[in-house]
Amino acid sequence: MSVTAAQGFEAAGVAAGLKSSGDLDLALVVNRGPLQAGAAVFTSNRAKANPILWSQQVIGDGVVAAIVLNSGGANCFTGAEGFQTTHATAEAVAEVAGVSATDVLVCSTGLIGVQLDRPKLLEGVVAAAEELSADGGADAAQAILTTDSHAKTAIVQRDGWVVGGMAKGAGMLAPGLATMLVVLTTDAVADSVTLDSALRSATRVSFDRLDSDGCMSTNDQVTLLASGASGITPAAEELAAAVTELCLDLAAQLQSDAEGASHDIRIEIVHAATEDEAVEVGRSVARNNLFKAAVFGNDPNWGRVLAAIGTTDAVFDPYEVDVAMNGVRVCSSGAPDRPREEVDLSARAVHVLIDLKAGDATATILTNDLTHDYVHENSAYSS
Amino acid sequence: MSVTAAQGFEAAGVAAGLKSSGDLDLALVVNRGPLQAGAAVFTSNRAKANPILWSQQVIGDGVVAAIVLNSGGANCFTGAEGFQTTHATAEAVAEVAGVSATDVLVCSTGLIGVQLDRPKLLEGVVAAAEELSADGGADAAQAILTTDSHAKTAIVQRDGWVVGGMAKGAGMLAPGLATMLVVLTTDAVADSVTLDSALRSATRVSFDRLDSDGCMSTNDQVTLLASGASGITPAAEELAAAVTELCLDLAAQLQSDAEGASHDIRIEIVHAATEDEAVEVGRSVARNNLFKAAVFGNDPNWGRVLAAIGTTDAVFDPYEVDVAMNGVRVCSSGAPDRPREEVDLSARAVHVLIDLKAGDATATILTNDLTHDYVHENSAYSS
Repeated sequence: MSVTAAQGFEAAGVAAGLKSSGDLDLALVVNRGPLQAGAAVFTSNRAKANPILWSQQVIGDGVVAAIVLNSGGANCFTGAEGFQTTHATAEAVAEVAGVSATDVLVCSTGLIGVQLDRPKLLEGVVAAAEELSADGGADAAQAILTTDSHAKTAIVQRDGWVVGGMAKGAGMLAPGLATMLVVLTTDAVADSVTLDSALRSATRVSFDRLDSDGCMSTNDQVTLLASGASGITPAAEELAAAVTELCLDLAAQLQSDAEGASHDIRIEIVHAATEDEAVEVGRSVARNNLFKAAVFGNDPNWGRVLAAIGTTDAVFDPYEVDVAMNGVRVCSSGAPDRPREEVDLSARAVHVLIDLKAGDATATILTNDLTHDYVHENSAYSS
Repeated sequence: MSVTAAQGFEAAGVAAGLKSSGDLDLALVVNRGPLQAGAAVFTSNRAKANPILWSQQVIGDGVVAAIVLNSGGANCFTGAEGFQTTHATAEAVAEVAGVSATDVLVCSTGLIGVQLDRPKLLEGVVAAAEELSADGGADAAQAILTTDSHAKTAIVQRDGWVVGGMAKGAGMLAPGLATMLVVLTTDAVADSVTLDSALRSATRVSFDRLDSDGCMSTNDQVTLLASGASGITPAAEELAAAVTELCLDLAAQLQSDAEGASHDIRIEIVHAATEDEAVEVGRSVARNNLFKAAVFGNDPNWGRVLAAIGTTDAVFDPYEVDVAMNGVRVCSSGAPDRPREEVDLSARAVHVLIDLKAGDATATILTNDLTHDYVHENSAYSS
């Protein structure tokens, strides 16, 4: 499972002492080839953590030999000293793995504005190198967690090749700790351009549509590495389809592991003029605190859905819109339809269907409700 | 005080039975002239309540003889029947006040998607007309409240003329119930064009910069009426200054009456390239749930401030920004400065100073923290 499901990869997860709890906090994944191709997408936040600034340089040539990830600190807004820590981490990996530092991606997650303990981090890299194995995927997936309740891994098996991966964060909590980190590996043969295309088409419809609380991280990174160890070269579309399937699986796991959340909300927009507008409309609902608090209270408050989508620039007539919640059409053409008492929101899964009657495009956005636990987790975390 | 501080106005507040509590729920304000000039600004939400759709027509000619406001229901997304209720309300006011229905503004606040009880509403108009008096401002201010803990009124006295007003809503709660309603009256002599200019310059720096939870109402309306009863014609700038002073006072009252809130947060942006960018940056912080939850926890989490402003398009270098909280500079040039332990967030008032080092423009945004009570109020309201 996880990042070692694909042939050609070794991984490890160790406790470097960055987390005061003593839990695993440093993961190392090494690509033993024969290929060392990679692609990555990064947060679009202009406030980028030091590991993001480093990794954006590394990914330029499409060659990735290893990726090292730590929890216990985001290394963001930590100045020149923080960047040097990231650089030193890559150099340490290069030395123990026998690769070039400029082929080593670095990811960090945790509190912003606090320096990482560099000696502990570098000792952790040495310890991780000693633990590297083709069975290390589970430990690696454990080491990248922050407030996640459990590790998230997935695998998509094809005829003779595999894509596997691990993820941390998102849900209601993780963006607060600054980060969703995802590492995907495959033993398919693919160059970095093909990987980049597959990764972008997959993240566009999965992680990019998971919007738990509207807060954009400074450290998000999703990486796809290929070893080519299977010797099989899938068609670009086959690879993209497998990566998309994997990303959708991991995105759903991230959504459902929101400790603070009591509902997983799937907002489906149909009959939008364009897909971009469907996403815009869905996101406006996903970011509406009043709607999210209402769902927490099992209240099918469709008026808040309409108030939210009325703030967008998407093409539609607010007085023609239909809204259904968990199968009950509570609003048709912008007026009350079925009684709200018919809607049962007691289950964790909530489906909101919004018919814009403006075209043929569709999109689905995943979010969570706004709960007491969300407030608690995000007010108490750093204290 | 309130809307009857200015000469030429009569008001009343009665219990029409729209609120199940039996509290006052219908306010009527009549302009006895000699002038009947008015201006209004409305929610920019495309999902507009029926009273907004009606009032936008009424305000067209700048003549306003009366305004009627009800709590206990927003009359939004209530279809043709809802619009007819608004129309019938204006007709009822016209009859009892001896004015034209097309000179009667209507405002509603409460739950979206529920029909108002039209007979009760129309009987309430008759009852209110019987109670109209030059001392009725206090009752009117009471009748427009929803979950507000107390009425909000203010007055600005000038040499021989007055501007007074009443407000409801905002803070953490009211936008959830769909609405900030504000009625301002003056006995100054001013035509509707001058009133409109004064009102827009005032709301631009007051209510437009009060952003409690990022949720835009379907029913917001701020109205300024002039009777000319003082016989004094202030210069346009004098009038605008008085109206601005009044609006800033009422906006601060709205912010501080957020029952769910435990902090009033003033986000001051300095050295922005433009005022619009200063507002954009301030608003991105005001809408960041993670930052707002941190303030609730008395946690000076400046990293969340930088993560929020990094999502904007404003001109600045994230690694040059300074952030101070309650007078302690916790971040300078995008790196840690004073220890966060020096920041005391135990008081209700919180000041966040963000120096963008990108120009000479400034703006201040008012918001509140994200609390358990906010979640509770907005999840339980309609159930």
